[in-house]
Amino acid sequence: MTLRQQQAPCKVALIVGAGPGISGALARRLAASGAKVAICARDGQRVAALADATGAAAFTADATDAGAVARLFVEVEERFGSPDFVLYNPSARAGGPLTELEPEAVATALAIGAFGGFLVAQQAARRMIPQGGGAIFFTGATASLKAYAGSAGFAMGKFALRALAQSAARELGPKGIHVAHFIIDGGVRSAKRPDPADAPDSTLDPDAIATVYLDTLAQHRSAWAHEIDLRPWVERF
Amino acid sequence: MTLRQQQAPCKVALIVGAGPGISGALARRLAASGAKVAICARDGQRVAALADATGAAAFTADATDAGAVARLFVEVEERFGSPDFVLYNPSARAGGPLTELEPEAVATALAIGAFGGFLVAQQAARRMIPQGGGAIFFTGATASLKAYAGSAGFAMGKFALRALAQSAARELGPKGIHVAHFIIDGGVRSAKRPDPADAPDSTLDPDAIATVYLDTLAQHRSAWAHEIDLRPWVERF
Amino acid sequence: MTLRQQQAPCKVALIVGAGPGISGALARRLAASGAKVAICARDGQRVAALADATGAAAFTADATDAGAVARLFVEVEERFGSPDFVLYNPSARAGGPLTELEPEAVATALAIGAFGGFLVAQQAARRMIPQGGGAIFFTGATASLKAYAGSAGFAMGKFALRALAQSAARELGPKGIHVAHFIIDGGVRSAKRPDPADAPDSTLDPDAIATVYLDTLAQHRSAWAHEIDLRPWVERF
Amino acid sequence: MTLRQQQAPCKVALIVGAGPGISGALARRLAASGAKVAICARDGQRVAALADATGAAAFTADATDAGAVARLFVEVEERFGSPDFVLYNPSARAGGPLTELEPEAVATALAIGAFGGFLVAQQAARRMIPQGGGAIFFTGATASLKAYAGSAGFAMGKFALRALAQSAARELGPKGIHVAHFIIDGGVRSAKRPDPADAPDSTLDPDAIATVYLDTLAQHRSAWAHEIDLRPWVERF
Repeated sequence: MTLRQQQAPCKVALIVGAGPGISGALARRLAASGAKVAICARDGQRVAALADATGAAAFTADATDAGAVARLFVEVEERFGSPDFVLYNPSARAGGPLTELEPEAVATALAIGAFGGFLVAQQAARRMIPQGGGAIFFTGATASLKAYAGSAGFAMGKFALRALAQSAARELGPKGIHVAHFIIDGGVRSAKRPDPADAPDSTLDPDAIATVYLDTLAQHRSAWAHEIDLRPWVERF
Repeated sequence: MTLRQQQAPCKVALIVGAGPGISGALARRLAASGAKVAICARDGQRVAALADATGAAAFTADATDAGAVARLFVEVEERFGSPDFVLYNPSARAGGPLTELEPEAVATALAIGAFGGFLVAQQAARRMIPQGGGAIFFTGATASLKAYAGSAGFAMGKFALRALAQSAARELGPKGIHVAHFIIDGGVRSAKRPDPADAPDSTLDPDAIATVYLDTLAQHRSAWAHEIDLRPWVERF
Repeated sequence: MTLRQQQAPCKVALIVGAGPGISGALARRLAASGAKVAICARDGQRVAALADATGAAAFTADATDAGAVARLFVEVEERFGSPDFVLYNPSARAGGPLTELEPEAVATALAIGAFGGFLVAQQAARRMIPQGGGAIFFTGATASLKAYAGSAGFAMGKFALRALAQSAARELGPKGIHVAHFIIDGGVRSAKRPDPADAPDSTLDPDAIATVYLDTLAQHRSAWAHEIDLRPWVERF
Repeated sequence: MTLRQQQAPCKVALIVGAGPGISGALARRLAASGAKVAICARDGQRVAALADATGAAAFTADATDAGAVARLFVEVEERFGSPDFVLYNPSARAGGPLTELEPEAVATALAIGAFGGFLVAQQAARRMIPQGGGAIFFTGATASLKAYAGSAGFAMGKFALRALAQSAARELGPKGIHVAHFIIDGGVRSAKRPDPADAPDSTLDPDAIATVYLDTLAQHRSAWAHEIDLRPWVERF
């Protein structure tokens, strides 16, 4: 006997932030498991291509716009039913010395990195609470825990997203909703960033990350993980 | 021989967020030490009253508006010279269950809690770097480290402000600028929140907090504190 | 394609600290998967009973005695081959006010909670490094991160064990050894501590914990988790 | 009005771990302020020399021996009265790869780094609780928060000492005893480790550290600091 749900890990998944890495790998795995998968990003062309490649359905919305996020959930609901798994992936960097950062870029980084996460989590929670279950996951980074020189514009959003995840976990756990926060500590492998031949697996394979997300999604409510850090075996930390 | 600057702890202080508690106590102490003290808040009437009470000069600006913050520093500079001590105090709460928070209130809390801190720190850094010295302090809270249920709208801003403080410390320390982050873990005493008669000193006395800020401001650069948590002796934590 | 080892998660497992909870659940699951499983505790009778119940083999050793731990590894090796998965579970509490703790009890708590973990990890590392692979896991607790009043005698050991896990992860990861630290935040279900009827799954089911350990053991080296906190859905934290 | 005790920061100080750096600087400053100062170490010759140099009185004890620590407090009490300020400074390193560490050296590092701190804190608490006041300080290091590769033998003790400090603060604060933990993040200046000419103040000046300890000792109970990190302005962290 294993205490794990044997069915598909969710019925309707909504993945916000549809890059080819983590979002793509998860979309593919979830679609293959029989779940209905919605992926959403601001760039319609990009999300359509990813939907094609993964078996997911494409949605377009600006995650930092409260109205747009509300509409997104209505659209997904109308098409697939209310999502029981929602992942918030987007982040934005405003890198550089403190003195040179553009205020507008920092505001955008905070909005995409954290405020959009709040909007998405709020819509998700409103639907999951009446169902008494569901899962809301957030993707963090090294900068969720440590703010380096030159990374204020990125770390502010990631720290804030971690606060959201913590608060949501404390609030929604007892309502049956599993909230988890993943700290991706290292570079994610992609076409643009292939794994170096002389340092195998020194980048995170998106599919390996997706496996951990899915394992976490399948966890029994008597032993839910909240924060999980993931890094390549050779990563310095 | 004590390794402490014996002169007034700073020449020109700018305190942003002019509540009667920490800001008021610090303004009074600094003004009494001979420093020129500028206090700034959005509410002109409130800041004028506090200036009168403390011997500081009143300035008015919206700390979340990049242009207004830039003008504030120019005004302070024209009147007193460039500040060598800048404190960012403001915070805003958007409390309540995740499902009921107003998106606008959360956005405001992030803007006041963190984005304004960035704008102020950026202007301060631009002036302090050429001088090769100065100090930038930030006021945090219990929620800087732990995001409770119902406090997402406050903790997101406080976590983000902590990221800013960390990144700024790493970047500006080697340029001679002391960046410190204070975690105020407990209720600050005020006219509205007097110390309970049956639990003496169970609230933080603003003047006791100000003493710690001033001690920190006087620290020698060979042993700078970056993060200091302060709480009443009876506080549970 | 999933990036997960499809074979049994390990060939030879050594579980130190053979309580009926986490150790028992893992021993049973690993034995069922085809792995050879050694469980070890100081109390020979207790470990023999658990071995019978789980399909593991019983070993007896005092984990805080360097010579005994060295002999344990030799015995396991002679019987099953060198372990490629080692788990350190034991802990000891010396609870009570600081003024009343027995020094001897605190010394024992440190020895069992942390020093034994070092001895076991050292023997494991010496065998796994030449193999270029393996996994060493440690079981922590709420007190790994927060030391409450009255819990110094427990938390000192758990903090120290976390230090060991962190240092070992940084040192052994690049040698192909997966080091993970699990923070069990809540009460583990047992015959003595059944799940309350009116609060289902408010205790951690040992089998649910074992699932997470096994998922972690199966992780691909491009995305290894190092620290995972586990708690029941209704746990306050 | 400043909320700070204007008298000498303490009447009777006991400094355990009498190296020439932090201990020496504090002993000198406290003795000069009029306090009676006891310094204690295992090496009688070394502590006598330091006592001569600072105006403190020398005591000899093995901090890891419960009986010896109990006798130390009796001796100090008989000579000066019960200490109202106790500092625990000692630490021991067992550096090197996990596989090569001598178990005996790791045991010693844990005993000196943490168990001795418990013995000293316990004796201090037993005397301070009836007085309703006092202060117990602990000296930590970078390794109190982060356990690097090759530093398990040091970090285990420092993590454990931090647990002790946290637990003691929660337990003793409400009894009027100020417990603080200082994280010294960098190299402390000494005759053997002078400040580099080309990197001024890149080492921590012991006297600058002592200033921060004394500022903390003078804090008002409505705003006590518990954990303070100190590092040179140019230190990377």
